[in-house]
Amino acid sequence: MSAILDRVADIIESRKLANGGDPATSYVSRLFAKGDDAILKKIGEEATETVMAAKDARAGGDASKVLYECADLWFHTLVLLAQFDLTPQQVLDELARREGVSGIVEKASRKDAPGDGA
Amino acid sequence: MSAILDRVADIIESRKLANGGDPATSYVSRLFAKGDDAILKKIGEEATETVMAAKDARAGGDASKVLYECADLWFHTLVLLAQFDLTPQQVLDELARREGVSGIVEKASRKDAPGDGA
Amino acid sequence: MSAILDRVADIIESRKLANGGDPATSYVSRLFAKGDDAILKKIGEEATETVMAAKDARAGGDASKVLYECADLWFHTLVLLAQFDLTPQQVLDELARREGVSGIVEKASRKDAPGDGA
Amino acid sequence: MSAILDRVADIIESRKLANGGDPATSYVSRLFAKGDDAILKKIGEEATETVMAAKDARAGGDASKVLYECADLWFHTLVLLAQFDLTPQQVLDELARREGVSGIVEKASRKDAPGDGA
Repeated sequence: MSAILDRVADIIESRKLANGGDPATSYVSRLFAKGDDAILKKIGEEATETVMAAKDARAGGDASKVLYECADLWFHTLVLLAQFDLTPQQVLDELARREGVSGIVEKASRKDAPGDGA
Repeated sequence: MSAILDRVADIIESRKLANGGDPATSYVSRLFAKGDDAILKKIGEEATETVMAAKDARAGGDASKVLYECADLWFHTLVLLAQFDLTPQQVLDELARREGVSGIVEKASRKDAPGDGA
Repeated sequence: MSAILDRVADIIESRKLANGGDPATSYVSRLFAKGDDAILKKIGEEATETVMAAKDARAGGDASKVLYECADLWFHTLVLLAQFDLTPQQVLDELARREGVSGIVEKASRKDAPGDGA
Repeated sequence: MSAILDRVADIIESRKLANGGDPATSYVSRLFAKGDDAILKKIGEEATETVMAAKDARAGGDASKVLYECADLWFHTLVLLAQFDLTPQQVLDELARREGVSGIVEKASRKDAPGDGA
């Protein structure tokens, strides 16, 4: 597991209200306090901003903005995972599983999914 | 760096047409062949499907669908990063940088960004 | 009510399976046959494509692409409304209602909503 | 043309800074002052909220929330159109054009587009 993902996931976990997170001082605690919809809205927002950053980069802008927006998107995905008591390790395991699965099996079970035939 | 993210990023890199990737056999090569817009559309799609999966999970559905959709979203983010010659390590570094940055400094420079005050 | 919105809504209504719509020959009937998720995915997709078209237009592309994508987005919104037995007239009535509502009242009831203070 | 769309488009037009719109008192003027990205972010946000509202409605929630979110989405589409000096009438004309176009011609020119074969 990535030490960084692990650390960020731990910090996010500690920001849950049940773990003493304080909405007055923590952005993530505020998201947890607001609940699912606030987190899901951020997923939609950050995806849109990632698309915008990529378009800007192609139009002569800064490619590092794509990086920042991907980091924002991943960060809020980590918050969503925590909200559903899931871990980044489980996402990585799922990515590893697909990569190891034969493309034929994968394609039979999921349309358009990146399996071994990725 | 996560060994899994590293491996998936390597596979994606190998699917670039310049690296011998074949759109006839590889889903990722097909995305690279189509270019930016095809990849960005997938970011938007997978974000929407993540939102839908989370809503379904709350309505009594399966939380593992949230996991699958997050994996899909991360996977296509990795394709986008490769398309811009960026790496997942750079995204992780950015996440680590923010986590280390003082909340006050971070808040001064970016509105609503999760810094140390995460 | 716009005669065009009315006509398009009527056509969409006629494409429902209960009204004789045939998935084999009609795109909209296929969406209805697939159900909510297929329609909602299109809302997400068309919103992303609208964002991309606007960015392309600013980067020297064709502004008419913004128009086509807005038409796609509105069209799939009309399909969604039909799926929930709602009508475009109800959306227009809601827009009219907000426009007439005093900005103060509106702001008191909904944060960031465009009311008379639009 | 829908009298309501017409009226809302007129109000939005009057909120442009060049037409005397004041960001201090008008939400739409604030969007125009911020520019493209602020408007496009709202398109992404409102599309996500529409998806969430539809999921909530199916899970026993209120279908009228779908209506409100569609109104929000249409409203911000109208702001985007104004930002690109386009009109809702042009979107309606495009919808009418497609409806009148033979499905075969339409399908030949655009993949997956709703034409007469809608």
